[in-house]
Amino acid sequence: MASLLGNLFILAAPSGAGKSSLIKALMEKYEGNETTPMQVSVSHTTRQPRPGEVDGVHYHFVSREQFEALIEQGVFFEYAEVFGNYYGTSRVTIEQTLHRGIDVFLDIDWQGARQVKKLMPDTCGIFILPPSLDVLEQRLNNRGQDSEEVIAGRMAQAVAEMSHFSEFDSVIVNDDFATALGDLEAIVTAQRLRTMKQQMRHQVLLDELLGSA
Amino acid sequence: MASLLGNLFILAAPSGAGKSSLIKALMEKYEGNETTPMQVSVSHTTRQPRPGEVDGVHYHFVSREQFEALIEQGVFFEYAEVFGNYYGTSRVTIEQTLHRGIDVFLDIDWQGARQVKKLMPDTCGIFILPPSLDVLEQRLNNRGQDSEEVIAGRMAQAVAEMSHFSEFDSVIVNDDFATALGDLEAIVTAQRLRTMKQQMRHQVLLDELLGSA
Repeated sequence: MASLLGNLFILAAPSGAGKSSLIKALMEKYEGNETTPMQVSVSHTTRQPRPGEVDGVHYHFVSREQFEALIEQGVFFEYAEVFGNYYGTSRVTIEQTLHRGIDVFLDIDWQGARQVKKLMPDTCGIFILPPSLDVLEQRLNNRGQDSEEVIAGRMAQAVAEMSHFSEFDSVIVNDDFATALGDLEAIVTAQRLRTMKQQMRHQVLLDELLGSA
Repeated sequence: MASLLGNLFILAAPSGAGKSSLIKALMEKYEGNETTPMQVSVSHTTRQPRPGEVDGVHYHFVSREQFEALIEQGVFFEYAEVFGNYYGTSRVTIEQTLHRGIDVFLDIDWQGARQVKKLMPDTCGIFILPPSLDVLEQRLNNRGQDSEEVIAGRMAQAVAEMSHFSEFDSVIVNDDFATALGDLEAIVTAQRLRTMKQQMRHQVLLDELLGSA
């Protein structure tokens, strides 16, 4: 896996930290950018599509039977069962994309992150935190679709997710959105500048510069 | 050393890669910036000041006897003899600066870099490359102060320096200056976002977020 030009990123966060908005903004900013190609990995899931979700774009929606068959075939890089639904990431697709020099972003939780890190230690894990407990509560409330009980459950789940932040390589505090987006971009750029990746990208230049020794 | 908030960076490059201009531009851009404080380490040297160089700003200019006394006292983080002159970096000053949360930039060669890396593995080593051999030759010629022989010697020295690029963590190709400066900024920002550093910077926030578990 060390010979892949693209970089694999994991983005994890508690619900309400603003992860989805950050990923969306990043993808929009770099859409069509040929020097920094990137894409979000599309996961498989057994959960029902929410309104507006498109099969193949937001998720590959499959049945429980289909998912378990794919597990058997070893297709998944990582998978987890959350609230009775399976979520998984296709290893083969990701490797092909990285091989083409495209950075891939995995929008997963700490459990998935741990599995991916084990298989690809070179993966860059990023954890996004809210700027305060108040803001987190507000953000979970602002969705306005759920009861207090559901919100309290989400808060507890958010805290549980956050307790794993130190398993990640980098931490972004999403206080000011533009700053957080800039931080995310900096991490992505810095990963591309690592010597091993630059060596692959600039092999011709390096041969020219060092060949005259 | 792992408990220092500031980050230590090494910038190395062959003469003619544009390292000095990049460091100067970076320092000017972040001058007075309190969220991202940074400074270049001022080295000690036994060589004669060049026109315009100020003692304590560009270098601490000392005699050969003074320098050797400082070596004995263990003041130097690293030192090297280049073309008959000593160059060294004060360990104590750097540690104090890092402790205050200020990023420190070391403008040194591969020999110094190797010594620093041994003492502080957490140091981020950055190597800057010219975009081609032609551009490198042009840049070494454009100084217009030296004979062809001196330039040929510098070219050989540049190639020798470049042969050590793979000992560094990151590589920047200085083709377009603004892009190279952006790359340097990204690496600096990304270093500040590493979990260990963020944990120190946001301890109060983390206690608040996780304390409610």
